[in-house]
Amino acid sequence: MKRIRLTLAQLNSTVGDFEGNVRKAKLALEQAHALQSDLLLIPELFIPGYPPEDLSFRISFLKANRKALEEFAESTSNKKVVSIVGFIDFDEDLYNAAAVVYDGKVKGIYRKIFLPNYSVFDEKRYFRAGDKLLVLKFGSAKVGLTICEDIWSPAEPLASLVNGFGSQLVVNISASPYCVGKPRFRESYVSMKAYEYHVAIAYCNMVGGQDELVFDGSSFVCDANGRLLARSKSFEEDLITVDVDLEENIRVNLTEPRRRYTYMENLPVEVIQFDEPKQKKQQLNPSIAQPLVREREMFMALVTGLRDYVRKNGFKKVVLGLSGGMDSSLVAAIAVEALGAENVKGVLMPSMYTSKENIEDASLLAENLGIETFTIPITEVYESYLKTLEPMFSNMPRDATEENIQARIRGNYLMSLSNKFGWLVLTTGNKSEIATGYCTLYGDTAGGFAVIKDVYKTDVYRIARWYNDWKGREIIPQRVFVKPPTAELRPNQTDQEKLPPYDVLDGILRLCIEEGLDAEEIVQKGYDPSTVGKVLQMLHTSEYKRKQAPIGTKISVRAFGKDWRMPTTNKFREII
Amino acid sequence: MKRIRLTLAQLNSTVGDFEGNVRKAKLALEQAHALQSDLLLIPELFIPGYPPEDLSFRISFLKANRKALEEFAESTSNKKVVSIVGFIDFDEDLYNAAAVVYDGKVKGIYRKIFLPNYSVFDEKRYFRAGDKLLVLKFGSAKVGLTICEDIWSPAEPLASLVNGFGSQLVVNISASPYCVGKPRFRESYVSMKAYEYHVAIAYCNMVGGQDELVFDGSSFVCDANGRLLARSKSFEEDLITVDVDLEENIRVNLTEPRRRYTYMENLPVEVIQFDEPKQKKQQLNPSIAQPLVREREMFMALVTGLRDYVRKNGFKKVVLGLSGGMDSSLVAAIAVEALGAENVKGVLMPSMYTSKENIEDASLLAENLGIETFTIPITEVYESYLKTLEPMFSNMPRDATEENIQARIRGNYLMSLSNKFGWLVLTTGNKSEIATGYCTLYGDTAGGFAVIKDVYKTDVYRIARWYNDWKGREIIPQRVFVKPPTAELRPNQTDQEKLPPYDVLDGILRLCIEEGLDAEEIVQKGYDPSTVGKVLQMLHTSEYKRKQAPIGTKISVRAFGKDWRMPTTNKFREII
Repeated sequence: MKRIRLTLAQLNSTVGDFEGNVRKAKLALEQAHALQSDLLLIPELFIPGYPPEDLSFRISFLKANRKALEEFAESTSNKKVVSIVGFIDFDEDLYNAAAVVYDGKVKGIYRKIFLPNYSVFDEKRYFRAGDKLLVLKFGSAKVGLTICEDIWSPAEPLASLVNGFGSQLVVNISASPYCVGKPRFRESYVSMKAYEYHVAIAYCNMVGGQDELVFDGSSFVCDANGRLLARSKSFEEDLITVDVDLEENIRVNLTEPRRRYTYMENLPVEVIQFDEPKQKKQQLNPSIAQPLVREREMFMALVTGLRDYVRKNGFKKVVLGLSGGMDSSLVAAIAVEALGAENVKGVLMPSMYTSKENIEDASLLAENLGIETFTIPITEVYESYLKTLEPMFSNMPRDATEENIQARIRGNYLMSLSNKFGWLVLTTGNKSEIATGYCTLYGDTAGGFAVIKDVYKTDVYRIARWYNDWKGREIIPQRVFVKPPTAELRPNQTDQEKLPPYDVLDGILRLCIEEGLDAEEIVQKGYDPSTVGKVLQMLHTSEYKRKQAPIGTKISVRAFGKDWRMPTTNKFREII
Repeated sequence: MKRIRLTLAQLNSTVGDFEGNVRKAKLALEQAHALQSDLLLIPELFIPGYPPEDLSFRISFLKANRKALEEFAESTSNKKVVSIVGFIDFDEDLYNAAAVVYDGKVKGIYRKIFLPNYSVFDEKRYFRAGDKLLVLKFGSAKVGLTICEDIWSPAEPLASLVNGFGSQLVVNISASPYCVGKPRFRESYVSMKAYEYHVAIAYCNMVGGQDELVFDGSSFVCDANGRLLARSKSFEEDLITVDVDLEENIRVNLTEPRRRYTYMENLPVEVIQFDEPKQKKQQLNPSIAQPLVREREMFMALVTGLRDYVRKNGFKKVVLGLSGGMDSSLVAAIAVEALGAENVKGVLMPSMYTSKENIEDASLLAENLGIETFTIPITEVYESYLKTLEPMFSNMPRDATEENIQARIRGNYLMSLSNKFGWLVLTTGNKSEIATGYCTLYGDTAGGFAVIKDVYKTDVYRIARWYNDWKGREIIPQRVFVKPPTAELRPNQTDQEKLPPYDVLDGILRLCIEEGLDAEEIVQKGYDPSTVGKVLQMLHTSEYKRKQAPIGTKISVRAFGKDWRMPTTNKFREII
């Protein structure tokens, strides 16, 4: 039985931190070496971090990326491990590439062929597509290389690598971002490919947060029948090592249907020869991490996104306004999970409209979480604003103006604490609010990171319920779950005066944003036409607020971020 | 002598305003018909507006776009004018396309072959590339079609259209955005192509503002020797009509060198036959608009960008803070030019640090411009903030925190006027400030449109000087030109305490942002290494502010907008 031993280094890189990224790669190499691995996989564009965006256009950045790769290559001397690591290759153009590094040298380079240019991806802005396959031979065993999108493309390059050039194993280094259900979907899809082409596949994904993106990791290896051999943890760094049987795919049940694919005849292949893999004596028990339930998966994505944004940007502590409502309660819980209670500061900023209940609930939450709080009443400053504005506003009725002034006073207080103490301000708006513009620009949207900006209100409740269950006690007080949501900017205000019930609102928004349905199609799903019209109207006219909103973790198929590029100036209105 | 009569309709479309866009197209058709034109050109993606961005993914938007095209097509019945108009073609995919419309029907469709996916363009996100040429025959005369980027590409499709299929005239419909010097560069480039291929070219460009982009128009027609036949105005709608001699390019001086290009042999061509152009009796005197001087060009771009943002978004009036400094003075002047003095409101918001001179200068400017002003002192609210923050700040020295509080108070006042009266808030920050983060988030950056965000401070002075000259009097008071720039957020503050002199700063920023040079290369140009290091450090660490800044008109090669996609989380620092 011919086996090859693989180590998948599911690591968390930081964009531009060449020193730190190389340090992590070296450590992974040490571990792979100690485990007698033949092949080490390190994620896509790991050396510069992913996505480097327009930094890719800076020569100094490209040079630092090349130097870092060379430094890593040097460290591989006398280690009998072939390492595959992502970097930016460049000559007269740029390539999303994988370096094959062995014994102190870069032995070969594979350039990604399929460049995603949809959703959050802009790879055609940066990279030229590769036009050559790369196969590593370990003795007679053949291993084909792919990078991320290459393996999601319908037939090539897998067809050529397997049916054309006889690879028994295809490896993929990836930076595949998270959205709800993605770990499961990704593994199912790739396993089906393994089954379809009858080839073992090792998929090594990046982990960690980079601005709005979170990479969940969830790397895995499956055999030539699509059966799972190993799976790493989600949302944390993890190294898994596994032996893959390379002869298995000739012991195939020939009664099963086997599709034969044609391959791109003109795609040349480069082959790099290495020694026969040593047949290991010591048996491995590769780990198979358990998948997470939906709410936990979302929660961990939010924790990871926040933690990495805070730490990678050099912050230690965060501050947020606690209103006693559900959104700020959940954000506080996520922040404590991400950073520890000692690094989270809560600020109560009551006005004349703030209820006793909300102050009690905010205080109880802070106590349950063990976070320090401060109280700054906004009434005096608010009165002072109204007084100075009176000459101009004298005869006009109160409206949203006065509500927004209050929200912006709170924003100013939080920012002043941020400026004075170096705490990052977290905003607490959810996706339902941000979609409808039910928020005050420079008020509750003021801050460095919008923790739950991609979480619908109905999911905010779901995650909060799961969180209390998980913790085994009511950290988020029970009353927060049952009282009607309110911005408390005028007497007896509730969200539902301006918005449809949240289950209806979220249903319409999901169909529009994630599913891409237009008004007519949404109505066909059973929603009231005038409600649909009203919701889409709010969505289309609040674009200017979203343009100036802070970034936050994407957890849905389509978040308000890189994958939502709507013009602000837009006269289109969907008529039903 | 065989002639064809062309009308170039340089029109201002609005994204999503199908009704308004079609109305303009119909009007242009009437005019072309009255002038006995054979061919009418209407810009790229004119029907949906450009760029429609992610609206292109909404089925309802695509359907409305098709319906609008059909409506325009119907209006062409019994008009003997062949019209070319840009729209989104779609079957199972999307195409940036030109419809050939004649006598009530769509006679043919050309799909753009070269899709720009660099700079501000993301066309590969939206469109599939066309793979077929289209030639219109008027009797025996051949006219080749191209869309924008098609004509910027080095050889094809021009080589095939001209040398392959014998077109005597190539027309281009375009949505080519403005940057300083672009009108001249574009015309030179395309005229050289005409000379090179020995073919007449008609280039019909869009005009007007759409979010950060301004289209300057500056459409033109040149003959087969690259000589200008007609040029439309810049920054306004304009129709030009011109007769092009189609036999001229066989009366060529054969002693001149003529390059012969190979063409893509596999590119198929569709030919649509129309009647021989009627030979007109009435002579035309096509207009040739004068090009604008640099400062006027920039000023008009800023005026157009602001005017269209305000009007297309349904605003009428704007409000801005007047500090007595140069930035707010120029923005006020631009606003008055764009919207009329009656639609511009100035607000003076003095603090204890505001000098008498600045109040005088702000008032004098407002008087000169004829705009209404209001005065709201911020001192009382500021004191109230400090008092409430004292328990937390007690022992700490004053720093940028207290400065930012003042800026944010002003932001809150301006926004409250916006909310109460429906005035759009204009921000007044320039590119030098925004590049270095020398601004307060939610303070002076609070507003709907950042009028001069892409104008370096040194250019702000240049444009202001030109403006006073142009107006023939010192509308911007002389003292504003000579006093040192200051934010007036603490006693005796000047910009130069924190920033290098503006000519040095702007020089370094231009080399870095527009020219893409890295630190080492900038130093080689003669700048002090420590200053370069400091400037690039400020640039790299203020990304989070730019992410939340309002949009504003792009006038440089590279603005902080669609063409500046930098990660916020970024540990890369350029070391010299």
